[in-house]
Amino acid sequence: MPSDSENKKPASTTKKKAPTAEQMAAKQQEISVTEFFEKNKQILGFDSRSKSLLMGIKEAVDNSLDACEEANILPDIEVRIDKIDDEDYHISIEDNGPGIVYRMIPNVFGRLLYGSRFHALRQSRGQQGIGISATVMYGNITTGKPAHVVSKIEGEFEMANEMDIVIDTKKNRPITSNENVFKWEGKDHGTRIEYTIKGRYITGKQSVFEYLKNTAIVNPHAQITFHDPEGKKYVFERATDIMPPRPKEIKPHPEGMEIGDLLKYSSNSAQKTVAAFLKNDFSRITDRLTKEILDISKVDGSKSPGKLTREEAIAILDAIKQVKIMAPPTDCLSPIGDTLIKKGLMHVLDGLRPEYYATPVTRSPKAVNGNPFVVEAGIVYGGDIPSDSQVQILRFANRVPLLYQQGACAITKAISEMDWRRYGLEQRGGKGIPFGPAIILVHVASTKVPFTSEGKEAVAGFPELQSEIGLALRLCARNLKSHLNKMERKNKTHAKFEIVQEILPDMAKKAAEHLGRPVPNLDRTITRIMNVVWIEPSVKKDGKSKRTVTYTVYNYTSTVRTFRLHAQLPKECLKDLSVYSSPYFLDINDEGKANWEIKDIQPSTNVSITFDLTGDMADTFDADDIYFSGLNPVMVMGAEMLPGDWGIKGMEIVESADDYVADDDEKEEEEDEDLDDE
Amino acid sequence: MPSDSENKKPASTTKKKAPTAEQMAAKQQEISVTEFFEKNKQILGFDSRSKSLLMGIKEAVDNSLDACEEANILPDIEVRIDKIDDEDYHISIEDNGPGIVYRMIPNVFGRLLYGSRFHALRQSRGQQGIGISATVMYGNITTGKPAHVVSKIEGEFEMANEMDIVIDTKKNRPITSNENVFKWEGKDHGTRIEYTIKGRYITGKQSVFEYLKNTAIVNPHAQITFHDPEGKKYVFERATDIMPPRPKEIKPHPEGMEIGDLLKYSSNSAQKTVAAFLKNDFSRITDRLTKEILDISKVDGSKSPGKLTREEAIAILDAIKQVKIMAPPTDCLSPIGDTLIKKGLMHVLDGLRPEYYATPVTRSPKAVNGNPFVVEAGIVYGGDIPSDSQVQILRFANRVPLLYQQGACAITKAISEMDWRRYGLEQRGGKGIPFGPAIILVHVASTKVPFTSEGKEAVAGFPELQSEIGLALRLCARNLKSHLNKMERKNKTHAKFEIVQEILPDMAKKAAEHLGRPVPNLDRTITRIMNVVWIEPSVKKDGKSKRTVTYTVYNYTSTVRTFRLHAQLPKECLKDLSVYSSPYFLDINDEGKANWEIKDIQPSTNVSITFDLTGDMADTFDADDIYFSGLNPVMVMGAEMLPGDWGIKGMEIVESADDYVADDDEKEEEEDEDLDDE
Repeated sequence: MPSDSENKKPASTTKKKAPTAEQMAAKQQEISVTEFFEKNKQILGFDSRSKSLLMGIKEAVDNSLDACEEANILPDIEVRIDKIDDEDYHISIEDNGPGIVYRMIPNVFGRLLYGSRFHALRQSRGQQGIGISATVMYGNITTGKPAHVVSKIEGEFEMANEMDIVIDTKKNRPITSNENVFKWEGKDHGTRIEYTIKGRYITGKQSVFEYLKNTAIVNPHAQITFHDPEGKKYVFERATDIMPPRPKEIKPHPEGMEIGDLLKYSSNSAQKTVAAFLKNDFSRITDRLTKEILDISKVDGSKSPGKLTREEAIAILDAIKQVKIMAPPTDCLSPIGDTLIKKGLMHVLDGLRPEYYATPVTRSPKAVNGNPFVVEAGIVYGGDIPSDSQVQILRFANRVPLLYQQGACAITKAISEMDWRRYGLEQRGGKGIPFGPAIILVHVASTKVPFTSEGKEAVAGFPELQSEIGLALRLCARNLKSHLNKMERKNKTHAKFEIVQEILPDMAKKAAEHLGRPVPNLDRTITRIMNVVWIEPSVKKDGKSKRTVTYTVYNYTSTVRTFRLHAQLPKECLKDLSVYSSPYFLDINDEGKANWEIKDIQPSTNVSITFDLTGDMADTFDADDIYFSGLNPVMVMGAEMLPGDWGIKGMEIVESADDYVADDDEKEEEEDEDLDDE
Repeated sequence: MPSDSENKKPASTTKKKAPTAEQMAAKQQEISVTEFFEKNKQILGFDSRSKSLLMGIKEAVDNSLDACEEANILPDIEVRIDKIDDEDYHISIEDNGPGIVYRMIPNVFGRLLYGSRFHALRQSRGQQGIGISATVMYGNITTGKPAHVVSKIEGEFEMANEMDIVIDTKKNRPITSNENVFKWEGKDHGTRIEYTIKGRYITGKQSVFEYLKNTAIVNPHAQITFHDPEGKKYVFERATDIMPPRPKEIKPHPEGMEIGDLLKYSSNSAQKTVAAFLKNDFSRITDRLTKEILDISKVDGSKSPGKLTREEAIAILDAIKQVKIMAPPTDCLSPIGDTLIKKGLMHVLDGLRPEYYATPVTRSPKAVNGNPFVVEAGIVYGGDIPSDSQVQILRFANRVPLLYQQGACAITKAISEMDWRRYGLEQRGGKGIPFGPAIILVHVASTKVPFTSEGKEAVAGFPELQSEIGLALRLCARNLKSHLNKMERKNKTHAKFEIVQEILPDMAKKAAEHLGRPVPNLDRTITRIMNVVWIEPSVKKDGKSKRTVTYTVYNYTSTVRTFRLHAQLPKECLKDLSVYSSPYFLDINDEGKANWEIKDIQPSTNVSITFDLTGDMADTFDADDIYFSGLNPVMVMGAEMLPGDWGIKGMEIVESADDYVADDDEKEEEEDEDLDDE
């Protein structure tokens, strides 16, 4: 039934009242960017009270981490939330960053679209120059109270500056008051931002606590202290003192560049010729490539770049597509790296006692629209992770956790579009978010993460990016699947062992008794039935930073065997490795790839190799990740065949995996790889 | 295995190279809004080639519809896509709108954040002043070619203007060229925008065709012609000549206003006193309310609004929460209305021969942050709609179809959070998008739709909005469920009828033969067993715009019955109704609620009422939507009990639904209602 009676009239009867084009023109006017965002707070992520509370803290912490890393300082960040009344919260975020010089404070905190990182081609959390000023604005709007900023830069005689800031939304300019200079006792350098905001403090998946916890996972070099509104204090301890490498600023990479970009660069170029412009204003364009591009495009390399025509620009772009340009340099990016992803996950998730941390994957960099990016993925499986619900997805962009808009994100889309049933997870129809006891982590690092909105909550679905996420996930899922397969085989063989070693002798004994004959020696029979080389890992934990790893190798076959074992040890533990003393030790390279040779092991005997791992990263080594070469894979239990891409310099592999016929599983994975390359 | 060797150094060794706070300050600078969007094209919706092609057309068509409606012209829009080469497409969108005056053309198409609708509180498609200029910019960037605009305003001696436009992204200003004035033959008024863009033409769910089709559903007053790149022509015919009522501009509504908003309004107010400011600058604040607010807040109503302090503003906001303010006026909105939603759906979806169009629901307006909004919902069920996949969701905001970011949208969230199993659809665990042969339509109309990004692809999840969407969906789903129940009951009773009317006489006959007795007359027995009043609708189609509806009423009970029948007829067909001539006719009101009285119908007899519906909307009447009063519902088949909110003026209902004990189903629905009110 209609709930409202509408007064609809045909067009003709009301025509006289309609405005003319002239009247409509009179209403056209410019819109201030601050007013635009003030009216569209949800675009900045401020759409509910609980989300707004999180957003502000997120923007401030992101800025603190960026500033610390830029100044090469191990971040130490303190977040405090105090409840004032019903909906009003007082927030304070303090860091030990380099501080902000006095004259810059008002603009950094009180002006939208103002910042230092927008034009720079390197990975950083903040890029837009919007976040923190939007937070100040939202605090202003909802409580009418100014934000308060305190900052001190390094220097023996430097004083700290403090001031109140509100934003004039009509002009997009800061208005400061209560400025003060003082000695900040006990603080060498750092910044504190305080503001009052209407919000709602929640716990759970989209809480401040969760955001800080996830921040700790991907920023293991940061120490984060959190005081919740009830006065409880949580400390996310620094998991490593290793600073991530500082991303370097690069020139634009020509891959995926649009004609408009090229024309803009050329008209702004300081170079005198098109040849110099191509060579000097872009990354990865060498002298040889410059010549090739000019040859193919038939553009005169000596003309001024400012005089490049649209047709010439199109010809250059076409030529760029035809020549082979190296991938963009990676030093503008700061991926977390497989070891640190694992370390971060272990550090934060160990309470769940997961059964397996699948070896994380860090893909090599690609570029989209000239912006290099790297995708990383990790999977945590089993233990106390709930098995009857959808997997938990941890999304990160430039080391920042993304807690909202999961449904809008290319990461979620990539996960949903992959058939996880092949990798041991449940999934209805092979589509959608899979079910099972797993946590899937994806990190996208880029000089320019394509967020779907200024609120930076979800990554847009560029095809190139989406496909890289899919690849990283598949590689990581393959690690999971191979673990699950190994466990399954191990369990099956264990069962077989039990039968052969217990029931067979028992039967023999009973039969012997029955027949009145002596009990036969079954050792060789058992060996013949088993027909495997068994590799059994064991790890002894010795304090927080020492692990003693032992591999016991049993030859349950009827012939003498010679083969090699290989393991990827955490490269951070290389200095203190005692692998060198092991009698079967062959060699180890810089990346931690270690090789042993088990020579002439007799049937029905065993030998063992042992080594110590020490240091922060010792616990990230998974003893199950052991590989062999020189044996038919069907007769090995407890290790995987050495992958073809192991490629150890200066070492000849006895036999490679390719010499054996791949089993069904292997074949399927190869098909998978083909699919990946599309 | 790690794919990249990273060169990580401890903090201390590289500290000297790190920039100081001073060096970092030197990099701080302003970011131009155009450059911001140029670098973040995905925020505007331009993130893949196929999506970009759609976005541009969407922005242009939205503008055309807005302009036509503002000038009260029935829209006639022609969209043409020509493929130039591999990725380059030439797009042209022409309308019969009022045209744009010459001096405004450059800014409208060549300047971001420039427009007429941003500050106006009334429903319109475009609000941001971004969309069409972003399209021009994207065309410029990807192909290097300018956009071309032609426009003519009404007037006997008016000439048409045309020009090329590119955007200077550093300055956010249009650069025009090739300006020309000419006589546009055969065109009284209108605008055409042409541009060249890199894109990809796709078919399917997120195609231009789908967008135009869905636009036709919610804009039945528009005529849209589409020429696809292969030269095929599609016409979405106008379904009605009724223009939607032109939304009126309103003053801000005080509900949900933030302190910052209030202080901004007060400092900008032209009023002399706070009392006048409250009364004149807001909608729905009367003299009485002004007094109440001032009394409660203890603010001096005679002071100047510019001098309002923060504390006083807070007191006023608190007072506003305590007084009862009328919902915002509805004439700033232009909901589609239940009849036209149904008409639009039928017009476009009839190829699927759906079994049932659930009566759409138009909720009454609410406000969020002072912005009134209305939610409408419709469900189409059965027929050729695929039954083994997720339901199709048609999302609309201010009469614009939303084709992307379904996962990010409050509409999807509301659908996913509802337990559809109660309403006859499949759903795993009562959560997520349900499965079944249904299409769910949701339309959100507001003076300010809270989109999650400038690309306007998804609605942000404000709690108030989300809950209204949920309510609309539940009410509409209830209509669906009641239809499904009715059909099930009908089928069951049909089966019972068959048994009683065929098998019983057959048994009696056989028994009589066997016993050698005469066959007994079973008429009364059958009537006693059935014990129902049966109402059977039938509809005769007579051309496109005439329907003859007949209800046959059978009294299969053993007593004489008197009761009433009620139906909601399309109010658009009222003039030509022949209901008046029916012998049982009682009365009908302006909204089309018609009533009949069946008096003294004898047991085992039947009577019938017949009437004609004529006009465009005749086919939107569903003959199954018939209600009764004055009978115990357990003995009626084929009609529903009259709902309590029917409320017909000047007519006393014999007995209301409340006089009967509700059955289980009814009870469940009541609980549901309670839940709704939370």
